[in-house]
Amino acid sequence: MKIGIVAPSCRLDETVAERLPGLARDAYGSDAPEFVIHPQCFLSEGHFAGPDAARADAFVELANNPDIDAIWFARGGYGACRVADNALPRLSDAARTKAYLGYSDAGFLLAGLYANGIGRVAHGPMPTDMKREGGKAAVLRGLGWLMDPAPLPGAKKQAAFNLTVLSQLLGTPLQPDLSGHVLMIEEVGEYMYRIDRSLFHLTSNPGMRQIAGLMLGRCSDVPDNDPDFILTEEEVTRHWCRHAGIAYLGRADIGHDADNQVVPFG
Amino acid sequence: MKIGIVAPSCRLDETVAERLPGLARDAYGSDAPEFVIHPQCFLSEGHFAGPDAARADAFVELANNPDIDAIWFARGGYGACRVADNALPRLSDAARTKAYLGYSDAGFLLAGLYANGIGRVAHGPMPTDMKREGGKAAVLRGLGWLMDPAPLPGAKKQAAFNLTVLSQLLGTPLQPDLSGHVLMIEEVGEYMYRIDRSLFHLTSNPGMRQIAGLMLGRCSDVPDNDPDFILTEEEVTRHWCRHAGIAYLGRADIGHDADNQVVPFG
Repeated sequence: MKIGIVAPSCRLDETVAERLPGLARDAYGSDAPEFVIHPQCFLSEGHFAGPDAARADAFVELANNPDIDAIWFARGGYGACRVADNALPRLSDAARTKAYLGYSDAGFLLAGLYANGIGRVAHGPMPTDMKREGGKAAVLRGLGWLMDPAPLPGAKKQAAFNLTVLSQLLGTPLQPDLSGHVLMIEEVGEYMYRIDRSLFHLTSNPGMRQIAGLMLGRCSDVPDNDPDFILTEEEVTRHWCRHAGIAYLGRADIGHDADNQVVPFG
Repeated sequence: MKIGIVAPSCRLDETVAERLPGLARDAYGSDAPEFVIHPQCFLSEGHFAGPDAARADAFVELANNPDIDAIWFARGGYGACRVADNALPRLSDAARTKAYLGYSDAGFLLAGLYANGIGRVAHGPMPTDMKREGGKAAVLRGLGWLMDPAPLPGAKKQAAFNLTVLSQLLGTPLQPDLSGHVLMIEEVGEYMYRIDRSLFHLTSNPGMRQIAGLMLGRCSDVPDNDPDFILTEEEVTRHWCRHAGIAYLGRADIGHDADNQVVPFG
């Protein structure tokens, strides 16, 4: 099995790339996959892992390669929205049978893939999570899904996104039809007033009001609000769900951390 | 003439309210307007100038009062999106003949008013701008429009928003039809990668691709990006306009500052 790795957002640390094959061998022995780590992962141009064209081309090249079984987004940051509408229309039949895994900023591409019915798409850990404490388990969790990207038996339709990323693609061609889905959201590094505002945005969108229900993942590294926002992330999520007539279905086990679970879409 | 002042977002400083009548008298003498400053402006609940219901009710009360000629939003911050869809459907015929002025977070209500064809709506200075250096001129500029809210003779249709606020209402019922409008945007306190992401969002929305062109106001207090984003706010605006087939029409004289101009919508 071959897993292609590209970085549509920010640059990947070489140390992560170096450690990945050994980690897979330790876990899978001779069944370990081969990693095709595109050199684009190590480019750098300002905020990004190389120019927009290089990031789009690397993604299209590996996604369209029939010898590669799955695409693993190397890491998040910011930049995937800059390549989505250049890359997605260039995907061929070979791209349609692949699995795609990532989260955070990679959600722009996961959304666009899912909106266009391309491949099997999941929110879940990325190679860069290796740098977290306990991150080895997260990376192996992601790898496990890539090795066997089956939908969960009997599971409801579902999808998962970083809240800000989902907010920032509402009303664009990247917005997928999530009607009937359990939607999980998570957030990192945003003030409570911004979490509240993004929830207004999400729950005011007519398409999003068709979801089966909303689950709240972890909101980590929330800066102190001045003045105190008083309301917690769960209280504001309940508020907006009630306001929009969306079922609040409790907490989801996702977030910017080593415990982040894989959520296959659909 | 009577001007009603409400605070749909954050609390107004009493000192601003105390200084406003004197400032108007100095400028207009016996023609100075009477200010009806709703006591809700001084409520406080966490981030907001009182509970959602109090902010919505104060706005509806003054907007529906036939003795009041215009509504001036006291200040921005965050919170107007929490009252918009409660308040807007309750506005009566008396609200339809008024002028409404504000900017920043008040843009949620300006958008909803304009989307529903209610009143004469403008982006422009608010009472709280008095606290800025040179802010007295800004407040008088806003007051001047409220005293005579005429459209600019021969001007193209136009609208102006804080970029983040406009982004956060795309794909919701608050999104106005801006086809054929010159759209001006400004930003404050956002990282360049966020300005870029909001511009992706804005220029990827099919409705926004119908504008006559985009003008870029000032982007102030931009925190340092790590790594350096390289691109300036004008370069990213040109990038996204080119990408979306939207005409870039140059700089607009708006922003979170004392020079912020009045932009009547329509």
